[in-house]
Amino acid sequence: MKETRTSRVLRATVEYDGSRYRGWQSQMNARTVQGVFTGAVKPVLGEGTRIFGSGRTDAGVHALGQVASLSLERSVPVPELPRLRRAINDGLPPDVHVLALEPAPPGFHARHDAALRIYRYRISRRRTAFGKPWVWWVKDPLDAAAMKKAAALLAGRHDFASFCENAPGHDSTLVEVAWAKVETPASVPDLILFRIAASHFLWKMVRRLVGTLVEVGTGRMAAPKVAALLAAASSEPSRYTAPPSGLFLETVVYEGDPAPPEIDPLRPGW
Amino acid sequence: MKETRTSRVLRATVEYDGSRYRGWQSQMNARTVQGVFTGAVKPVLGEGTRIFGSGRTDAGVHALGQVASLSLERSVPVPELPRLRRAINDGLPPDVHVLALEPAPPGFHARHDAALRIYRYRISRRRTAFGKPWVWWVKDPLDAAAMKKAAALLAGRHDFASFCENAPGHDSTLVEVAWAKVETPASVPDLILFRIAASHFLWKMVRRLVGTLVEVGTGRMAAPKVAALLAAASSEPSRYTAPPSGLFLETVVYEGDPAPPEIDPLRPGW
Repeated sequence: MKETRTSRVLRATVEYDGSRYRGWQSQMNARTVQGVFTGAVKPVLGEGTRIFGSGRTDAGVHALGQVASLSLERSVPVPELPRLRRAINDGLPPDVHVLALEPAPPGFHARHDAALRIYRYRISRRRTAFGKPWVWWVKDPLDAAAMKKAAALLAGRHDFASFCENAPGHDSTLVEVAWAKVETPASVPDLILFRIAASHFLWKMVRRLVGTLVEVGTGRMAAPKVAALLAAASSEPSRYTAPPSGLFLETVVYEGDPAPPEIDPLRPGW
Repeated sequence: MKETRTSRVLRATVEYDGSRYRGWQSQMNARTVQGVFTGAVKPVLGEGTRIFGSGRTDAGVHALGQVASLSLERSVPVPELPRLRRAINDGLPPDVHVLALEPAPPGFHARHDAALRIYRYRISRRRTAFGKPWVWWVKDPLDAAAMKKAAALLAGRHDFASFCENAPGHDSTLVEVAWAKVETPASVPDLILFRIAASHFLWKMVRRLVGTLVEVGTGRMAAPKVAALLAAASSEPSRYTAPPSGLFLETVVYEGDPAPPEIDPLRPGW
């Protein structure tokens, strides 16, 4: 008799265009990505399936690789997973797509177990006929070199109180940023990418960092001021919150994962 | 007194998402790209401006670099062109964008003077949350190596009668194909690109070539059969016409132009 490996916890990797959603997290009376995802998962994997995302993404924010953990009522055979993934995708609207559906260890939880989250933010220096919902078009000329210099100041352990919206009941504003960089892909000179990796992020943190980097890029703010904003709490960056359209949850990394794959700088579109 | 160079003929390079248009060419009672382009150009450059595109693109077909010639009622100073381009873009819907507006020699005509046209066709091997309007999603597994072999047979002077829709009053079906190739960009393994360059194309030619290459990719057609279809007129490829969503007019080249720029294989989106 051939043994078939089974799994009761699954890990789903999901890409979505968040333009028409009130964010990832399920809400009463609002269309969310988790809501439509759950609606496609339950008929395939069982009504009792419990689903947790690695974290909220705000209204209008996108994902190239959101991760969700799925706790099933009963185990499924691992060789069935490709077919089940296709069945889930058949039930999803065109702007949400399950890239992978894999067995996960017992107790795996997409939010609690996440070791590193990588976000990307896409700034367009020009109007574009194609990728408008997935960029922030900044009309002012931008000094990308100055932005690179300012982004480099973000790596390390800092108090990001200046760069977050105060969520009720939220405790520390200390975040260890593994790396942060501004990239200018040679193949598309009008695109500026900001990418940042940390174990967790505060509410609106990436968008306020990007808004502040754009202030540096236009020359309205000197690069070293970013260090001063990290050193002392200030409400100034709240004025520079970048729009959600340019923001993507790129990858979520868990203990034991291989190095995250390089995702083409042009994704999702231009 | 400083001399200011002026020009009475302009060359516009235009990108557009053709999803919501009945093609490039102006038509009565239909929304076309040329129609909205003309509507944005005339208030800026004069009601008597005459506009010619390098060629029709069909309903739903896109462009990364359509070229139009603009014959003005009176000359404009060349240093004014960047400002005029911005004014035209301000009057365009978000899915049409003028990339460049340059002086052209007297008598320049975008269609008559075109030396080479390059098209790209984008095939997706998977469902995608982002680029759906800009690919043809083929669910069958595709053998890209077989498609490459078949595409190589297209270069040279052939009778493409098997691969065109008979347009009334159209004369020869002989076309000299400068090059044709199937590319699989390493950064996006699920994308297959077909690119083809020729002085001119016949109606539906690229879409029928792509549909036939996909037959080869699935294994339903042997690669050498493509040569047989070129050698003898056949109605078979009309059954394989690929959808317009994946087709892009990439570049139009004119005598004296520098080598056309490499356009990132991921453009416009994924």
